[in-house]
Amino acid sequence: MRVHVALTPADAVGLALGGWAAVVVDVLRATTTVVAACAAGCVRIIPVADPRAARSRAALLPPGSALLAGERDGENIPEFPLGNSPLEYTPERVRGRTIVLTTTNGTAAMLSAASAAVAAVAALTNAAAAADWALAQGRDVAVLCSGDNGAFALEDAVCAGLVVSRVAAAAPADLSDAAVAARGLGEYYGPRIRDLRHASRWASRLARLGRAADIDACFLRDTTDMVPVIQAGVVVPGPGVSPPVPAPMQRAGKTP
Amino acid sequence: MRVHVALTPADAVGLALGGWAAVVVDVLRATTTVVAACAAGCVRIIPVADPRAARSRAALLPPGSALLAGERDGENIPEFPLGNSPLEYTPERVRGRTIVLTTTNGTAAMLSAASAAVAAVAALTNAAAAADWALAQGRDVAVLCSGDNGAFALEDAVCAGLVVSRVAAAAPADLSDAAVAARGLGEYYGPRIRDLRHASRWASRLARLGRAADIDACFLRDTTDMVPVIQAGVVVPGPGVSPPVPAPMQRAGKTP
Repeated sequence: MRVHVALTPADAVGLALGGWAAVVVDVLRATTTVVAACAAGCVRIIPVADPRAARSRAALLPPGSALLAGERDGENIPEFPLGNSPLEYTPERVRGRTIVLTTTNGTAAMLSAASAAVAAVAALTNAAAAADWALAQGRDVAVLCSGDNGAFALEDAVCAGLVVSRVAAAAPADLSDAAVAARGLGEYYGPRIRDLRHASRWASRLARLGRAADIDACFLRDTTDMVPVIQAGVVVPGPGVSPPVPAPMQRAGKTP
Repeated sequence: MRVHVALTPADAVGLALGGWAAVVVDVLRATTTVVAACAAGCVRIIPVADPRAARSRAALLPPGSALLAGERDGENIPEFPLGNSPLEYTPERVRGRTIVLTTTNGTAAMLSAASAAVAAVAALTNAAAAADWALAQGRDVAVLCSGDNGAFALEDAVCAGLVVSRVAAAAPADLSDAAVAARGLGEYYGPRIRDLRHASRWASRLARLGRAADIDACFLRDTTDMVPVIQAGVVVPGPGVSPPVPAPMQRAGKTP
């Protein structure tokens, strides 16, 4: 099995992922948010490129079923009921709903994974489960880091490295140089995830934006077995988790 | 002082290096070869994009002054007297000569550094001296890794990390995420450079091409204080080294 890591979005351009299992990472905060949303029982997440596309896409969905969500450069988008904090994605808010999500870095990476044979979403909160998902595919594995406005983001490389480390420990793996480097970063920062708060530029910027609680939530390791998978460009909760309560039942329960 | 590392050629695209000191790295083998050539007394190295450009450029130089040199995908170029092995660049061969060099990865990075305010060439063999050169410029520092056919190359990141480590230890430095990651790789592999032989794909390919002696030569640390600098797209031996014997004197000596 080959194992590769695209450390930046540019590194993923031109990768022939046809036969591969892809794992998309944007620790701060899009993939952590997607994992939280799926664990909280949303039906699906539709990643879109920008706020305008989000509004257009939501308009095509049954009234009341969709929630607009996302951020630009760490700030919430006016009139969008959800931002990009995993803490916002509670069962009360998202169970049974479709979320139309646009973020600065993460949604582009989720969209770019569409060329892979199979694709899933990883964060620090589900890295071990995502590695197990990747192993179970029986394919070469590529981890795609979303990065920070096109640049390398340390926390994404660390998360990718934790996935690589677990995959390579469980099966014979032929690691690319980038996978070796990410694994090293994962093994260094894995036991000291909190050090990322100071080392990561994006974490520093989010902290200045008053998002310290989000960083705490994103820097938790392996708190869930939920592995969202990407199917035809749409993210859905992975198997092995009890299905969400269908939306009509939920609404009926709220307005008896 | 800001310190950044472009881990791949794509990461360097669009960097505004106007006020920066750039350090170009291609450990296997172009920048190691350039360091060796300058230490051996060549007059200058002209990096060019391809073998055709090398022949055209050499034709503009005084007869007998230029040596064509380079490789493509690790193999020597037919009819070029020099390849890309640092072991070939002996004083007997290169002293007083101009070398027109084209390589798969390294020469492009040297050419891309032309946009920086000042630029120099680093390898494992001169990493400490290159860091000291960068510090002496009093500017922000960007290390540009040549990579492996566009992809991340572990040995380049390690060399970049050794430069970052020394720079950041000597002066207050604001490190980008990529610089933090490279520093970590440098600190891990620095004391165990030989491990790179197995971890690096490019090293493995060169070994299969019968270039094990080159890898040995490229994986030596800090064997020279020579820091070649890039001026107007041409690489010249850095200051602090006795100037090479001028070509006419050398030829006169050979044919008394």
